[in-house]
Amino acid sequence: MATDNRNPEIRKDAINNRFVILSPARSRRPSDFKSKPQSKSDSNPSSGAQPQCPFCAGNEHQCAPEIFRVLEDDSMSDWKVRVIENLYPALSRRIEVKSELQEYRQANGTAGEVSLGGFGSHDVVIESPVHSVHLPDLSPAGVAVVLLAYKKRIEQICVDESIRYVQVFKNHGASAGASMSHSHSQILALPVVPTTASARLDSMKEYHNQTGRCSLCDIQKDKLLIDESTHFISIAPFASTFPFETWIVPRHHSSHYHELNEDKAIDLGGLLKLTLLKLSLQLNDPPYNFMIHTSPLQVTSSQLPYTHWYIQIVPQLSTIGGFEMGTGCYINPVFPEDAAKILREVEVSKKE
Amino acid sequence: MATDNRNPEIRKDAINNRFVILSPARSRRPSDFKSKPQSKSDSNPSSGAQPQCPFCAGNEHQCAPEIFRVLEDDSMSDWKVRVIENLYPALSRRIEVKSELQEYRQANGTAGEVSLGGFGSHDVVIESPVHSVHLPDLSPAGVAVVLLAYKKRIEQICVDESIRYVQVFKNHGASAGASMSHSHSQILALPVVPTTASARLDSMKEYHNQTGRCSLCDIQKDKLLIDESTHFISIAPFASTFPFETWIVPRHHSSHYHELNEDKAIDLGGLLKLTLLKLSLQLNDPPYNFMIHTSPLQVTSSQLPYTHWYIQIVPQLSTIGGFEMGTGCYINPVFPEDAAKILREVEVSKKE
Repeated sequence: MATDNRNPEIRKDAINNRFVILSPARSRRPSDFKSKPQSKSDSNPSSGAQPQCPFCAGNEHQCAPEIFRVLEDDSMSDWKVRVIENLYPALSRRIEVKSELQEYRQANGTAGEVSLGGFGSHDVVIESPVHSVHLPDLSPAGVAVVLLAYKKRIEQICVDESIRYVQVFKNHGASAGASMSHSHSQILALPVVPTTASARLDSMKEYHNQTGRCSLCDIQKDKLLIDESTHFISIAPFASTFPFETWIVPRHHSSHYHELNEDKAIDLGGLLKLTLLKLSLQLNDPPYNFMIHTSPLQVTSSQLPYTHWYIQIVPQLSTIGGFEMGTGCYINPVFPEDAAKILREVEVSKKE
Repeated sequence: MATDNRNPEIRKDAINNRFVILSPARSRRPSDFKSKPQSKSDSNPSSGAQPQCPFCAGNEHQCAPEIFRVLEDDSMSDWKVRVIENLYPALSRRIEVKSELQEYRQANGTAGEVSLGGFGSHDVVIESPVHSVHLPDLSPAGVAVVLLAYKKRIEQICVDESIRYVQVFKNHGASAGASMSHSHSQILALPVVPTTASARLDSMKEYHNQTGRCSLCDIQKDKLLIDESTHFISIAPFASTFPFETWIVPRHHSSHYHELNEDKAIDLGGLLKLTLLKLSLQLNDPPYNFMIHTSPLQVTSSQLPYTHWYIQIVPQLSTIGGFEMGTGCYINPVFPEDAAKILREVEVSKKE
C-alpha cells in the first residue's frame, strides 16, 4: 500500500461519472478491532472431488437443470464447463411473473413507486469439473472456453425481447459474496437496464456528443497501462474506485461483449489469466469480483457508437462503510498510477 | 428471515430511482465456506475506560485537534460529546488543496476526465466519554445532544462556500466499516455533490415536476410504517435495498437536516434510540450503518421544495458481490412489508 504524504485528490472519469476520493492517508489509520485473517480469499483449502460439492464432476444430479455443457474434445461424457440454472435464483423464469412485467411496461412513465414481476434468469457457469481448479489455473484456451460460454448464453438470453440487460460476474471468496468455493461465475438476465449501466451510458453518450469519440477508445493509457495483448489492454482506471482495481478493455471499439469471437477469446483468456495471477501474487490471493460491463440488449451496435464493453476486476481489500453507501463516492488509499506501476512489475513465472 | 415461496419482484421508489430485486428464495441458499461468527457487531467486549482508546475521557491528548465539545451541565471540565478532526482524514483542510479546487471549478463542463484537489473536512463525533456506552444506551435527550452536535458542525461547515455537500454517517462494528469500537460517528464535508445525492435530487425533482408534491411527504406508509413520534416516522422503504433497512423521516417537509431544532432533536433522539434497540434485539446486535441524507449546501430551502432529508439505517447482514457492484441493483431476500411487521412488534423493555 502506498503510504505517502501526497494531498488527497477527487477524480471523476468520462465513463462512470462517479466521484472517487484518492487519499493515501487513510491507509495509515489503526484499528482496535481484533484483526481477522485477511485475504487468502477465505476459500476452503481442498483438492480433489468434494463429495458434498454439487459443482464437482459426478454430482451433477445435485444441481438445478443444465442449460448446456462444453465437452472435452476427446470425450462424449466428460465436460470442461457447464452452464446450469441457479438453484436459488434471484429472478424467476415463470410465465406468470413475465405477465406481471407487461403490466409494468404499460404503467411506465408515471411518477412514484413502481413494481414489476421479477422476471429474468439467473445462471451459474461452472468453470471446471475439478474442485481445486480456479479460473487462472486454466490455460488461456481454457479460460476462453469459459468466456465463450458467457457469449453463447448471452446470445440465447437475447432471444427473449423482454430482457434488456445481462450482468456476467464472478465472486471469488466468501467475503466477495461467493457462497460456494468451487470456481464459478454467474449470469443474470434483467428485464430493466440497472442504474449503474444507465449512468454509464449517459456519461459515455455525453462524452461522444461533445467530442464525437468513444470515451473508452480515448482512455488515458500513459501511466495507467498494466499489460497489453493483441486485442486488449489492462489498465488501472483513472478514477479507480478500489485499490488495485483493474479494467480489461478491447483495443477496438465494440459495444457488446457477445461480439467476442474465438480468436479474441483466447487472447482475452491469456490477459485475464495474467491479471488474476498478478493480483493473487501481489495481494496474497485476495477475494475478488469481476464484472463484465456490456451494453443494453435489444439495441444494435450501430445505435451505440458511444458504448464500449470492458471487464472490471476488483480485489476485495477494504470494507464499505456509511460514507460510501451514503454518497456512492469511494475512498481509495492507492493512487491508480501507483497500482499500475506495481502490477506492471509483478513477475509471473511461466509455470503459473 | 422470510423464506416464503413468493415470486420475486423488482421495485423502484420515487426517491432514489434505483432498482432493487426482492427475492425471498435467495435466503435459502447454502454455503460451503466455514461460517464466520455472524453479527454481534464484532465489537470488542469491554467496559470502563480503555487505556489505549483515544476516544475515552482522559485520553484527549492522543486525538487530533478538537473542534468543539458539549459540556456536562454540572461541570466545566467533563464533556458529553466531543467533535474532533479525524487523525486520518480522507480530505484535506489545507489552503493549497483548496486552490487546486478553484482550477477545477474553472475547467468544469469539459468532456473527459477531471481531477480536483481533495479539499474538505473529515470530523469525528465522539458520542460518549465512556468506552462501553453506545448511542442507543443514551437517553433520548442524550441522543439529541449528538444530533445537535451534527447540526452545529454542519452550520460551521456551511460558512465555507466551496463546500457543496455534507455526509453525516455512523459505522458500528468492524464489518460495517468502523475501525474504532468506541461509539462515534463521522462528518465529511465535500466540495462536490456526490453521485448518489445528485441521483436522489434528480429523482425527487422529477416527481415534484409531475405531481407538484414532495415524494417523501407523499411516502407510502400503509403496511410499511414501523413507529411514529410527534415529529417523525420510521418506515421500511418500499424499495428497501437491504433486509430490515429502516428510514426515519420528518413528518413535515424539511430540505436540510440542520433545520432541526432542540425540541425535534429530543423527539428524533427517542425514535432513533427505539429503532436501534429494535434492530439490535431482533437481529442480535448486528453491525450497522446510518447515513443522514440531506440536501446540497449553498442552496436555500425555498429553492428546494422537492427535497426532504431523512436518516437511512442499514443493518449489515449480507455481503455485497459482483452483481450489486456491477449493476447498483441489490438483491434483498426480505420484503419490506415483512420487515416492517416484524419491527413493529419487537418489544423494547422500559429499562433499555
